[in-house]
Amino acid sequence: MNQTSLVPGSIAEHTGCLLIKLGQVVFRLVEADLSRLGLRVRHYSILQALADQGSMTQLALGGYLRIDPATMVSSLDDLEHRTLATRVRDPQDRRRHVVELTSAGRRMLARVNGALEDLDTRLLHDLAADERAALHRSLRVLAEGPTLPAALDADRETAPGRVT
Amino acid sequence: MNQTSLVPGSIAEHTGCLLIKLGQVVFRLVEADLSRLGLRVRHYSILQALADQGSMTQLALGGYLRIDPATMVSSLDDLEHRTLATRVRDPQDRRRHVVELTSAGRRMLARVNGALEDLDTRLLHDLAADERAALHRSLRVLAEGPTLPAALDADRETAPGRVT
Repeated sequence: MNQTSLVPGSIAEHTGCLLIKLGQVVFRLVEADLSRLGLRVRHYSILQALADQGSMTQLALGGYLRIDPATMVSSLDDLEHRTLATRVRDPQDRRRHVVELTSAGRRMLARVNGALEDLDTRLLHDLAADERAALHRSLRVLAEGPTLPAALDADRETAPGRVT
Repeated sequence: MNQTSLVPGSIAEHTGCLLIKLGQVVFRLVEADLSRLGLRVRHYSILQALADQGSMTQLALGGYLRIDPATMVSSLDDLEHRTLATRVRDPQDRRRHVVELTSAGRRMLARVNGALEDLDTRLLHDLAADERAALHRSLRVLAEGPTLPAALDADRETAPGRVT
């Protein structure tokens, strides 16, 4: 229906504008795909963090994933309702709770990872294999920082209400 | 405050997840910066499209930028209120209106383009110059498609209400 670029004309001269638009489009397509499994990207992030790091408090999870407390609570409610994660008393400190991955959560995580791998293959089809690898490396460098994480954290401190 | 990657652990194995998160972070930082000029990214896109393509109808602008009609109307209202763009009768077909860039709009566009160039330099600082150039090229390929534009347009047809 529309043959123009996602980032038409001179707008595409700005790398930032390309990143913004491609991020939005990929987000929309990934969310559409994961909705088949009844999940959103943020649910996947939480399950994967628990698989990578082991049980964590809600606060630690929110800091690790930079998810605000309100979103974290509702996402954990969703996961607990689906029995993919559960809040349990911390065996090391019985006054606090930690979030734990369930075995159903671990099985679901394997399916989501498969879906995400398929999506990468499908959505990045217009790039050659070496271009895809280089893109992946550069995006990882940006994510690891120091520049972007520090800039985001500074903005979160000055304007905590701003939507990410 | 937080030394972890924006996309921590195994989540960073998925290029799509990196694109989603970096897009969100860059969007937030670019919006914060452009707010000094009283503009949002979508206002810039409209001004730039008019500078690139000349006057266009509201419908054509929406198609070109893939902005839904409601967002387009409110963004054009903002621009008209700031006298950066104006709706005028189409000289070639006096029954319809086209959106035209004003001279104030053109001056503002130069300032926004300067701000966006500075942001690219600042936010992509962790990459070497050749990596930045390669990243830019690959993102442009993805934006131009055919894969991603076609996938987005198909999803917009099936689920027009989904937020991009």
